Amino acid sequence: MAPLGLVTFLTDYGLDDPFVGQCHAVMAHLATAVRVVDLTHAIAPGDIAHGALLLADAVGRLPPAVHLAVIDPGVGTGRRAIVVAAGDRFLVGPDNGLLAPAVAALGGGVAAWVISDPPALPWPAARTFDGRDVFAPVAARLAAGDDPQRFGPAVDLVALQPHALPAPVPCHGGLDAAVVHVDRFGNLALAARPSDWPGGWPPAAVAITTPDGTRWSATAGLTFGDVPTGGLVCHPDAAGRLALAVNAGNAAEVLGLDRGDVVELRAVGTH
Amino acid sequence: MAPLGLVTFLTDYGLDDPFVGQCHAVMAHLATAVRVVDLTHAIAPGDIAHGALLLADAVGRLPPAVHLAVIDPGVGTGRRAIVVAAGDRFLVGPDNGLLAPAVAALGGGVAAWVISDPPALPWPAARTFDGRDVFAPVAARLAAGDDPQRFGPAVDLVALQPHALPAPVPCHGGLDAAVVHVDRFGNLALAARPSDWPGGWPPAAVAITTPDGTRWSATAGLTFGDVPTGGLVCHPDAAGRLALAVNAGNAAEVLGLDRGDVVELRAVGTH
Amino acid sequence: MAPLGLVTFLTDYGLDDPFVGQCHAVMAHLATAVRVVDLTHAIAPGDIAHGALLLADAVGRLPPAVHLAVIDPGVGTGRRAIVVAAGDRFLVGPDNGLLAPAVAALGGGVAAWVISDPPALPWPAARTFDGRDVFAPVAARLAAGDDPQRFGPAVDLVALQPHALPAPVPCHGGLDAAVVHVDRFGNLALAARPSDWPGGWPPAAVAITTPDGTRWSATAGLTFGDVPTGGLVCHPDAAGRLALAVNAGNAAEVLGLDRGDVVELRAVGTH
Repeated sequence: MAPLGLVTFLTDYGLDDPFVGQCHAVMAHLATAVRVVDLTHAIAPGDIAHGALLLADAVGRLPPAVHLAVIDPGVGTGRRAIVVAAGDRFLVGPDNGLLAPAVAALGGGVAAWVISDPPALPWPAARTFDGRDVFAPVAARLAAGDDPQRFGPAVDLVALQPHALPAPVPCHGGLDAAVVHVDRFGNLALAARPSDWPGGWPPAAVAITTPDGTRWSATAGLTFGDVPTGGLVCHPDAAGRLALAVNAGNAAEVLGLDRGDVVELRAVGTH
Repeated sequence: MAPLGLVTFLTDYGLDDPFVGQCHAVMAHLATAVRVVDLTHAIAPGDIAHGALLLADAVGRLPPAVHLAVIDPGVGTGRRAIVVAAGDRFLVGPDNGLLAPAVAALGGGVAAWVISDPPALPWPAARTFDGRDVFAPVAARLAAGDDPQRFGPAVDLVALQPHALPAPVPCHGGLDAAVVHVDRFGNLALAARPSDWPGGWPPAAVAITTPDGTRWSATAGLTFGDVPTGGLVCHPDAAGRLALAVNAGNAAEVLGLDRGDVVELRAVGTH
Repeated sequence: MAPLGLVTFLTDYGLDDPFVGQCHAVMAHLATAVRVVDLTHAIAPGDIAHGALLLADAVGRLPPAVHLAVIDPGVGTGRRAIVVAAGDRFLVGPDNGLLAPAVAALGGGVAAWVISDPPALPWPAARTFDGRDVFAPVAARLAAGDDPQRFGPAVDLVALQPHALPAPVPCHGGLDAAVVHVDRFGNLALAARPSDWPGGWPPAAVAITTPDGTRWSATAGLTFGDVPTGGLVCHPDAAGRLALAVNAGNAAEVLGLDRGDVVELRAVGTH
């Protein structure tokens, strides 16, 4: 099998500290020909749930790669460092649930290993920076074609830390779903997919009720352009989630919603 | 002709969402040997005018490359996706005026194509993420040497959406010009170039009047060091624009100016 | 000697302007096979002291590379542009003290050169953007294997601008040290290392007094996990500095400390 040659990288490190760059430098050093692509480093510190969701939503629309993810409040404790094989990819990160939804999105894990013997670096490993000293080195060498067995013993997949993403609550004529991500444009991704919709997506229109009781009417469509400027559309987004968007506007501001808020969606009319 | 091998990338995606990284991953997948350089992703959502200006200002001091730019409030509507050949480069993006000033800065377009058949990806194209599914794939393959005709039919250059950058208003003894960019250091780039100055740049000094009527005196120079610390200089910046700067200070704060403000500049004395 | 092949890049340019990307593009153009890794571009404008510290702290845990650093309030004045050879690396930047602590951290300089003849670019050099037109081109070509003599004459190392990092003040039973960096997680890096501690690190515990007179008790440990959730630990961080951290918390917020604050640390008990 040809080496994957590509690492995608997601953390809660931010870009102000040199942490991300130090991990990049280590990977460039250990695997000269491997490319490393930053997915995001803006996850709030320690927010495993948010990172797990964004990673799981992305993997299905990423090319085959080693998916390196580090949100690791337990660094320096006994939590394990793991590699999971899923589909034609590897996932590398702490065993704290961060990788689990992405593994599931890829159809489930094939095998897993506990990292006990990461590639050697020219400095002693720190106790608080496994991203640089453990995870990035393993990801780089996996992407260069190394066998995961080189880095530690196999572990039973069922022994790994699970993590469930928020799910919709189906109701008569619709569902309730939490906002799981608000992007820069104010688009609201929901804990629901078109396949979750009772009777099949799309209904003719959707009535939306926000936590404060306000009701909105949205077109059930496929893209922003299905509604006039300023109009509200509920559509499958680029990650396959149902999302609320305002054409040429900011749905989060218009609806007054933030991540974690639960909205009621009900069919209006017939498809 | 050897492949350009380089893509420059400008969007309004920000760096908090995984959008930029997903585009990078697609390009790494489709064109392993192509390098991708981020110009900026911090343009305000949908601000085509600002993105067009920064791109046009940059291209003249960038090496030959495919210039990928995506500020695309019309994604999912009927707006066209285009490739423009200009000089020894290609520009790729939506046909909404974003590329037009850069094309002009490169001496005008040579040919253009409408993208109807982008490179295939391992997932179905989304309706709301042409950056990942249309523009980045085409840019990557163009940089790898593919012929633009592969991605769709030629289109007449005059049929493309135009976009004019702000221009100075010449006056007796000077000009009026809008602030078109404020950089991180507070330097104020103006909608004017040295060649716009009546009688030729530099005059001995420049009298500046801000919108609130305050008057300032600036040295007409070439660099910050032409004035003492805290002094105000009007000089051609690294993009070739007339700019207002305070040596070791922040001109935007000192003058109380922001993007869009129009300032009056008048010659004082003789060169 | 094989080319270093790697450039690390630190500036105060931020990521909102296209400055960093323009430097990357120049390097990709001049040295196709060289990789460029961003350490950070979030240093406050002109804050040479902070950049010098982060660079010096990083170099010891970076692979051999050309370390390009540009915080350059004197651009356009007479300050020199320099290359310093130290260990198996080169450092490139303005001669304003920015590089000096990193050179010291690498065991001192071996040789230095003043840049008078940077690689040619397809545009005239600007007076205010030496990052793009001078430093990045030299760094790229050095990483590609060019001899530093190609870019200008040698200069005596003692003629370069010095810069001293903050040092601890040893006291009976401990030391006083300034906070020199606050990272995204609120960890507080101090101007002290374990080797600075009287009698050797670690003591059994550390009493900490903040500038407002508040006293705290910290465990002297090796990592966050040495204390319970919410506990305060003083430990050597990933850069080798003594640091204050709260397990699963934000020490900067808990202790009310910011960069520049001086804290008293005193041993409690016996090791």
